[in-house]
Amino acid sequence: MKLRDATSPRWLEVALGDFDATLLDHAHCEKKAAANALSLLQAYPDVPGLPAQMARLAREESAHLAKVLAVAEARGLTLSHDKGDPYAKGLQALLRNPPNERRLDRFLVAAIIEARSHERLELLANALEDPKLRTLYAELAQSEDGHQALFLRLAESLAPKAVVDARLEELLEAEGELVRRLPVRPAVH
Amino acid sequence: MKLRDATSPRWLEVALGDFDATLLDHAHCEKKAAANALSLLQAYPDVPGLPAQMARLAREESAHLAKVLAVAEARGLTLSHDKGDPYAKGLQALLRNPPNERRLDRFLVAAIIEARSHERLELLANALEDPKLRTLYAELAQSEDGHQALFLRLAESLAPKAVVDARLEELLEAEGELVRRLPVRPAVH
Repeated sequence: MKLRDATSPRWLEVALGDFDATLLDHAHCEKKAAANALSLLQAYPDVPGLPAQMARLAREESAHLAKVLAVAEARGLTLSHDKGDPYAKGLQALLRNPPNERRLDRFLVAAIIEARSHERLELLANALEDPKLRTLYAELAQSEDGHQALFLRLAESLAPKAVVDARLEELLEAEGELVRRLPVRPAVH
Repeated sequence: MKLRDATSPRWLEVALGDFDATLLDHAHCEKKAAANALSLLQAYPDVPGLPAQMARLAREESAHLAKVLAVAEARGLTLSHDKGDPYAKGLQALLRNPPNERRLDRFLVAAIIEARSHERLELLANALEDPKLRTLYAELAQSEDGHQALFLRLAESLAPKAVVDARLEELLEAEGELVRRLPVRPAVH
């Protein structure tokens, strides 16, 4: 999947400028990713292969969450309440309501979030100075790439390829527009 | 923690009589346990140590979910929609509303659910014939016991011991009453 707009260099500057805030937001992102995997399992247990894949994904995202929280703790940070994420909310608003369309959209939106997360965690991996953090972020970025592929495969199992491709184009367009519109924050998105 | 009422031998008979149904219900229980860990992290990120403990718990419960689903798949079973769980709902109804009371109750109820799960998974471990299943259930029962202790420790960090003990007694009484009242089903609870 190719994102419409590459993240602006300004984001990296802001994210590194208050890396503690970015890290705590990142923890909330991993938490939401784990919760979303369980929510998809809850909603669509009848999609072949989905329950086992979402269980493994929830395990992996929870493990990432634990790693990010360990880094935060070592830096003396404490997690605050999740104030919500305008990027995730903006994408959520794109989901269509009829059940089949909504199901397809949920997998495609999940794939897009993973693609954007992959891009940004890789930017962090390449720009951070601490070698341990570089290694951790490179590893996490790699995982997000795998998750993107997983969600795309699941989407492609649900509808004809032409339908999936056309909807993916629309959502990628909307995501690009959303990213350009949102203020740049010390946060993953 | 000592549960008020031991599970009746009739439950084991019914649970083993349709073990496939029990197994699929068990998958839903592990899913709810993982989701509850993330939900507690979301609600109470400011309780010292809680985020890291809940992240590890979500990872462990998701790993258990994956194992139970693998057993279900090997038996040719497919997960159906979670119809909800009258036991969990009955306990949920006991939570008080004021924020501090609710927080304490959530940890105590979680501890009680883990204690009951520990009891029942151990009954299954000892009664199942398949050696692999006996091993798996013994391992899972052991974990639930650790989770019960974790939730009790968290509860004890939130309120004076006398307050925690008194409320735990009330909730144990109510749980015993609930277990006696609910119909016996091929399900963990």
